Amino acid sequence: MSQSARFRAGRHFLQIPGPTNVPDHVLRAIDRPTIDHRGPDFGRLGRDVLERIRLVFKTRSPVVIYPASGTGAWEAALVNTLSPGDRVLMAETGHFAALWKRLAERLGLVPEFLPGDWRHGADPDALHARLADDRTHAIKAVCIVHNETSTGVTSRIAEIRHAIDRASHPALFMVDTISSLGSIDYRHDEWGVDVTIAGSQKGLMLPPGLSFNAVSDKARSASANARLPRSYWAWDEILESNKTGYWPYTPATNLLYGLQAAIDQLLDEGLANVFARHDRHADATRRAVRAWGLEILCANPAEYSSALTAVMMPAGHDADAFRRVVLDAFDMSLGAGLSKLSGRVFRIGHLGDFNDLTLMGTLAGVEMGLELAGVPHRKGGTQAAIDSLARAHAPAAVREVAAAK
Amino acid sequence: MSQSARFRAGRHFLQIPGPTNVPDHVLRAIDRPTIDHRGPDFGRLGRDVLERIRLVFKTRSPVVIYPASGTGAWEAALVNTLSPGDRVLMAETGHFAALWKRLAERLGLVPEFLPGDWRHGADPDALHARLADDRTHAIKAVCIVHNETSTGVTSRIAEIRHAIDRASHPALFMVDTISSLGSIDYRHDEWGVDVTIAGSQKGLMLPPGLSFNAVSDKARSASANARLPRSYWAWDEILESNKTGYWPYTPATNLLYGLQAAIDQLLDEGLANVFARHDRHADATRRAVRAWGLEILCANPAEYSSALTAVMMPAGHDADAFRRVVLDAFDMSLGAGLSKLSGRVFRIGHLGDFNDLTLMGTLAGVEMGLELAGVPHRKGGTQAAIDSLARAHAPAAVREVAAAK
Amino acid sequence: MSQSARFRAGRHFLQIPGPTNVPDHVLRAIDRPTIDHRGPDFGRLGRDVLERIRLVFKTRSPVVIYPASGTGAWEAALVNTLSPGDRVLMAETGHFAALWKRLAERLGLVPEFLPGDWRHGADPDALHARLADDRTHAIKAVCIVHNETSTGVTSRIAEIRHAIDRASHPALFMVDTISSLGSIDYRHDEWGVDVTIAGSQKGLMLPPGLSFNAVSDKARSASANARLPRSYWAWDEILESNKTGYWPYTPATNLLYGLQAAIDQLLDEGLANVFARHDRHADATRRAVRAWGLEILCANPAEYSSALTAVMMPAGHDADAFRRVVLDAFDMSLGAGLSKLSGRVFRIGHLGDFNDLTLMGTLAGVEMGLELAGVPHRKGGTQAAIDSLARAHAPAAVREVAAAK
Amino acid sequence: MSQSARFRAGRHFLQIPGPTNVPDHVLRAIDRPTIDHRGPDFGRLGRDVLERIRLVFKTRSPVVIYPASGTGAWEAALVNTLSPGDRVLMAETGHFAALWKRLAERLGLVPEFLPGDWRHGADPDALHARLADDRTHAIKAVCIVHNETSTGVTSRIAEIRHAIDRASHPALFMVDTISSLGSIDYRHDEWGVDVTIAGSQKGLMLPPGLSFNAVSDKARSASANARLPRSYWAWDEILESNKTGYWPYTPATNLLYGLQAAIDQLLDEGLANVFARHDRHADATRRAVRAWGLEILCANPAEYSSALTAVMMPAGHDADAFRRVVLDAFDMSLGAGLSKLSGRVFRIGHLGDFNDLTLMGTLAGVEMGLELAGVPHRKGGTQAAIDSLARAHAPAAVREVAAAK
Repeated sequence: MSQSARFRAGRHFLQIPGPTNVPDHVLRAIDRPTIDHRGPDFGRLGRDVLERIRLVFKTRSPVVIYPASGTGAWEAALVNTLSPGDRVLMAETGHFAALWKRLAERLGLVPEFLPGDWRHGADPDALHARLADDRTHAIKAVCIVHNETSTGVTSRIAEIRHAIDRASHPALFMVDTISSLGSIDYRHDEWGVDVTIAGSQKGLMLPPGLSFNAVSDKARSASANARLPRSYWAWDEILESNKTGYWPYTPATNLLYGLQAAIDQLLDEGLANVFARHDRHADATRRAVRAWGLEILCANPAEYSSALTAVMMPAGHDADAFRRVVLDAFDMSLGAGLSKLSGRVFRIGHLGDFNDLTLMGTLAGVEMGLELAGVPHRKGGTQAAIDSLARAHAPAAVREVAAAK
Repeated sequence: MSQSARFRAGRHFLQIPGPTNVPDHVLRAIDRPTIDHRGPDFGRLGRDVLERIRLVFKTRSPVVIYPASGTGAWEAALVNTLSPGDRVLMAETGHFAALWKRLAERLGLVPEFLPGDWRHGADPDALHARLADDRTHAIKAVCIVHNETSTGVTSRIAEIRHAIDRASHPALFMVDTISSLGSIDYRHDEWGVDVTIAGSQKGLMLPPGLSFNAVSDKARSASANARLPRSYWAWDEILESNKTGYWPYTPATNLLYGLQAAIDQLLDEGLANVFARHDRHADATRRAVRAWGLEILCANPAEYSSALTAVMMPAGHDADAFRRVVLDAFDMSLGAGLSKLSGRVFRIGHLGDFNDLTLMGTLAGVEMGLELAGVPHRKGGTQAAIDSLARAHAPAAVREVAAAK
Repeated sequence: MSQSARFRAGRHFLQIPGPTNVPDHVLRAIDRPTIDHRGPDFGRLGRDVLERIRLVFKTRSPVVIYPASGTGAWEAALVNTLSPGDRVLMAETGHFAALWKRLAERLGLVPEFLPGDWRHGADPDALHARLADDRTHAIKAVCIVHNETSTGVTSRIAEIRHAIDRASHPALFMVDTISSLGSIDYRHDEWGVDVTIAGSQKGLMLPPGLSFNAVSDKARSASANARLPRSYWAWDEILESNKTGYWPYTPATNLLYGLQAAIDQLLDEGLANVFARHDRHADATRRAVRAWGLEILCANPAEYSSALTAVMMPAGHDADAFRRVVLDAFDMSLGAGLSKLSGRVFRIGHLGDFNDLTLMGTLAGVEMGLELAGVPHRKGGTQAAIDSLARAHAPAAVREVAAAK
Repeated sequence: MSQSARFRAGRHFLQIPGPTNVPDHVLRAIDRPTIDHRGPDFGRLGRDVLERIRLVFKTRSPVVIYPASGTGAWEAALVNTLSPGDRVLMAETGHFAALWKRLAERLGLVPEFLPGDWRHGADPDALHARLADDRTHAIKAVCIVHNETSTGVTSRIAEIRHAIDRASHPALFMVDTISSLGSIDYRHDEWGVDVTIAGSQKGLMLPPGLSFNAVSDKARSASANARLPRSYWAWDEILESNKTGYWPYTPATNLLYGLQAAIDQLLDEGLANVFARHDRHADATRRAVRAWGLEILCANPAEYSSALTAVMMPAGHDADAFRRVVLDAFDMSLGAGLSKLSGRVFRIGHLGDFNDLTLMGTLAGVEMGLELAGVPHRKGGTQAAIDSLARAHAPAAVREVAAAK
C-alpha cells in the first residue's frame, strides 16, 4: 500500500542540497485540514504569509507565491517581463544556470551565455563589459543564479548590481535564489533586484510545491509591455487578488500552512542567526573536506556557498558509486554531480533545518563512506569539524586563547 | 503564531465543491518526511502513482502530473498541442468555461464560444453543426468542461465525442474533469478524449497543488508541431523522466505521498462504488432542495451533477448573506454563486471523502440556515433526504415494497 | 501492516459516550516528538497543564494526573484515603457505579450500595438518611458517579453535598466525573468534593490514557493515615514532584501535549459556552427521541445527562442488532446497553468536540437505522432537532415570537 | 499556547536512555482518530498487537498490556502474584532496583536486598547461595532488573535462572526489561521467567504510557492464591477480555496504534538485526569513551549494556553542569546520574530508533561538550567510533585485513 519502502532504524539523513529536512512542526502544520480558499480564515492566512514572506526576501515589494516548482518561478519571471526575441544575458555558473538558459530558449528568448568553468560565480567585470558594449540596450534582462546548487558556488549579487549600474544599463536584474533564500544573506531591495526567484524546498524548510517571484516596481512596469503569452504565471491578477489575501485560482493551501510555520521559525531564530549558522556549518564542512585531502569544487573562497559544498572525487573514483555506498550503509542521501560533473563530484547539503550534531553525523557518514568505498583520503575530517564547531561555541575568551595556540 | 483561527468545537463542514475534505490517512501520508527526489525510494513512489493514476482516468495512456493548480493543467493542455492563432471551439457552460476561454485568449489562441445559459451542458448538436461547417478544419481543438463547478451541470462527453466523429472532424478533444474525476464516471480512452485535465483537490480528496493531463497518442503527435512556447508544462521531458518514476524538475513529493494514499482509497472502495455513492448523495440533495421548494440551477435532469448542486435563491434574497449565516452559525462553508450568478445561487458540494451522515449534517445545516436567514422555504428537505437514503440502503425486497407504496 | 481496516469514505461517526472524537489539532499535538521528561521544556509543559487543568475542575486544589485509564483513578481515590475494611457508601446508579463498587470490594473495602433502578441518579435523601443513621461514623467515604455513562442519568452533586452536611457526617466525598468533566457543569471546590475522578477520553477530547484525581486538603490529610497499600497511585510523591512540573515516574508525555491543546480549546471556547453547547445538543437529541416515539431511559428530567442519551428499544427489538445496522450502513458507532441493559438500550454520545451539524448527522443516522432495522418508530425526530437547533440559534426576538406560537 | 518552547533549528537529540526517539511513522500512527474500543476494528487491532507482541518477548505466554508507566507494571507483577508479608529477593544493581524494592515495601512485601556496588549486575552465585539457604522457601519471588537504566549494567538472566534451578527453589522469577526489551536479546520462555516487566518508551520506540507483563503459567497459578489487593492491575479479567482482542476498561487506543506500527518495524528489521545494531553502537560508544580517557561505569565487560553507557566524570567535575552545556550548545539531552551517582556520571542513550549517523552526532556532541565544559579529556573519541563503525560495515574480507593490521 502506501508505505513506499521498508523500515530502516533511525532517521534518514537527507543531505542533498534540497529538498531539505522539513521540521516536524512544519509537517504538522501542513497536515491540518484544508479550508475554503474563499473564506475568512483563508484570508487571514493569506494576508499573513504575503506580508511576512517579504521579510525573508528583505523587500517591501510584493512577493508572488505560485503553486509550482522553482522551475515555474523561473518561467514566471521571464514571461511576465519579456517579449519574443528579447535578448537576455546569463552567466554559465553551472547546471542550473544552463537549465535556465535552455528554458529561456524554449520560450522564444535569445539568451547570451557568458562562459564559465563551473568553479566560479558570475564575473561582475565580464558582465559589465558586455553591458557597456550593448549601446542599443538590446539586452533586456540580466539573469544570475545566486547560489549554484550544482557547484556550491555563489555569485556576488551586490557587485553584479554595481556592474550593471556602472554600465548605466537599463536591463532588468533577475536573480535565482532557489537554494540560497533563507540560508545565505540576500537583499532584494538593497541590491536592486527586479525579480527574485525562489522555491519552498530549500532554506524555507518546506516540501517542494511552492515557488516565488519578488517583484520590483520596475519589473511590474515592464510587465505592462511584455508580450510573451502568459496566464497561469501572470502577476497582475495574482497581485490584485493578493490584496485581500486570496488567489485568482486555488492556491496550495496546505503548503501555505507550512509556509506560515516556516516563517515563524525563521523569524524566531532571526535571519542573521540563520545565516551565521549556515556559515558555521559550511566552514566546518570545508575544514573536514580539506582534512580528508579532498578538493572543494568552488575555486574562489569569496564565493563559497554556505548552503552546500561540492567535493571533487580523486581521479579514477566514481562519485555515484561512493554515494550508493553511503546510502546503503548509512541511510544518507548526498547530492550527485550533475551533467558535466556527473560522477566527478558529490554534494553535501548543509542547509535548512539543520544543526551542529546533524552536521557531525553527516560528516562522519561521509568519512565512513570514503573508507568503505575505498576512496583515498586522510582520516580526521570529522575531527577537524568537531574542533571548529567547539571553538565556535566557546566563549570569546576561550576562543582567543585557542586561536593563540 | 501559526494557528490561523480561534477554536470552534467539532469539525468544520467544508461543503464547497472543492477543495474537499481530505481523509485523515491522506493528511497523515502528506505529513511524512520529504525524501530525495532522485533516490530509489522516490522512484518506487513515482512509478506507483504514475501507473495507478491511469486507472482513475480509465486510460492506458500516460498521465502527466504537475506541481500546479488545475488552472495550470488547462494551460498545459493548450500550450503542448496548439500554435499561436489556432482556433479552438469551446462551450459557454459557466464560469469556469469562461475562464478557460479567457486563458486561451491570453495565450494567443482564438477561442470560439458556443453560447449557453449556464443551466445546460454543452450541446452536442450545436458542436456538431459548427464542426461540420468547418470545412477547412480551422478548428484545432474542442474544449469542454465535463462538470461545470459553477453550475452543477455536466456535459455529455460521450455524446460530444460522437458529435465530433459524425462531423469527421480531426480536432483534438480536450476535457476539463477538475471537479468530476473520481466523483463522476469518466472514461478517457473509451470516449476518445485527447487531453483530460484534472486537479487534486476535488474527487481525488487531496489538498490543492497537483494537476494532471492525461494525454492520448494523437495529442502527443500534435505536440510535435505545436508552436506555443512552453517549458514548465512541456510533456516531452516529463514523460521521458517519468519512464523511471522521476521528474525533470523537483516534484511536489509530499502531495505525491497523498496521491498514493488517495489512489489506495479510491481503488479499495472501487470506482463504480465511488460513483454510485456520489449519485446517491446528489439524488438525496436534489430531493431535499425540491422539498424546500427551491429551484435547482441545472435545467436538464440528464445533466445533473453528482459532485455538487447549485441552488437558486428566491428572488430578493442574497445567497451570500445566507452563506454567511450558515458559516457563522453552523461552521459550514458553502460555495458562492460566481460572476453572473453571484448572490443568486449557492452551491452544495457533495463530493470526495463524504458519506451519508456528513451529507445529512450538510443538508440539516442548509435547512437551519434557510430558517435563520429568513429565506422562504418549506420544511422537510432533510427528512426527504433521510427517506431517500434509508431506501437506498434497504435490501432489495424492502425497496420494492417501499416503491410500491 | 498497520492500517487496521479497509477504507470507508468519509469520517467515522464516533457517537459512543466516550472515547469521543479527538480534535485534529489535539491529535497533531500528540504527534509531536517525545522529549526528555526531566528537561526544562518538559517542566514548562508540566507546570502549564498542572496549573490550568484546575480551571476545568473549578478547583484551587492540586490535580493529580496519572498515565492510566479512568478505572485507575477510581482505584487511586480509594487507596490513597482508605484502610482495609473501611466502609464506603455508594449508590447504584448503573453499570459504572456497580463496577466501582466491585473495585472497592477487590481492594478490601466494604461498600454499602444504596439500591437504584438505573433510571434515576443517586437519591440525596436516601444518602442523608443512611449517613444520619451512621452515628459511629463507620462510613469513611461517600462515592457517587456524577454522570452515569451507562444510563445517561446524572446525580445532583450539590444536593448530595448538602445531604452529607445536613447529617454532619465527616465522610470523604468522592465523585466520578469521567463522562461529565468538560461537558457538564462541575465544581470541585464549591460543591465540597474531596476527590474528583476524571479521565481523558470524554469531555477532555483526548485519546484514553490519562486519568485524574482532584484532591482536597481533607483528602490529603486522610491519606496520611490511610493503610491500603499503594505505590503507583500514591499522591504524596507525585504532588511533591509536580511542584516543579515533573513526575516521579515517566509521565505519558505525548498525551500531556494533547491535554495542553485540549485545555487551550476548552478555555478558548469558555466553559460556560461548552456546557451550554452540550445542553443544547442533549435537548435536541431528546426532542428527536420523543418525536420518534421512543423512550428515554432517564426518568427524571432534572437528571438528564447533557453528555449522552440512552434510548430504550421497543419490546422485542434488539438494540445491538440495531447498532450493527447503523455501523454497517452508516459507519456510526453507538453505545451498547451494558449488563442488565444489554440489548435493551442504545446510547447516543453527544459530548466532546461536537457541533450542531455532526449532531444532525448523528440523529439522521439513528433515524435511518431505525428504518433499516425495522424498529417501530415515527418519522420526524431529525426534523424536531432541526427545529430546536434553528430556534436556539435565532436572535432573541425571533425566539420569542417562535415561542409565542 | 501549545507550543511549549521556542524554535531551535534541526532536530533535538534525545539521547537519554528513554524515552527514546519515536519514529515518524509511529507518531503518525498514534495520530490516527480514536475508535470505539468495543467495535470490530478495535478487535482486529487488539488481536494483532496481543498476538505479535509475544514475539518481542520471545514467549508463547500471554502479554498483559496496561495503560500505565513501567512503574505500574512493576506493581502489577507483584500484586498479582504475592501476598502481604511475602519475602522477595532483589539485587541492588542501581537506582531502579532500589525503587522497585521500595515499591515492594510500600505494598507490604518484605524485600531482601543483595548488596551491590552499582557497577556490576546481579551476582548469580550470591543469589544461588541465598536461595539454597532458604530451606523453608520463605522467599516467594526473585526480582531482577535486566538492564539497569541508571548504570548501564546488565544482569545475566540466563545464569540467574540457572542459579535458581541449581538451588531447586520454587520462587517466581520476575525480570524488569523496561530498558532492554527490543534493544538487548531477551528470552522470556527459554530463560524460564515468570513475569517480565516492560515499558513502551525505550526499545519499543513509543511514547511513554503503555507497560507490559509477560506472564508464565506458573505466575498465573500463583495469582490464584495471591492476596495483595488488586483491581486495575488484575490479570484475570484482562486476559479474559483479551481473548477476543478487547480490554475490561478503556485501553490507550492511540498508543496501541503506535505499538502496532512499532512491532511492524521491529519484526521487519528482525530482532537479531535490532540487537546487533544496538551491540555495534554500544561498542562504538565505549571505544569513544575510552579514547577520551574517561571511565565506563560498568566494571564487567560481560555485563556491558547495549542500550546505554554511563560515563564517570573526572573527579571535581560536575556531570550535570556538563549536561547543561551540551543541552544549551548542542540541543542534546543526556541522562543524569541518579541518586548516589548524581553529578558523578552522565548517561548516553543509544537505543531505540537509532542509526550510525545519529550515534556519530551524539558522540560528537559529547566530545564538543567536554571541550566546552572544560572537562579534561583526550580528543579522538568520535574518530575511534568512526573507525569502529566503518570496520563493522566493511565486507568480511576487508575486516580481516583491517584486523590483521
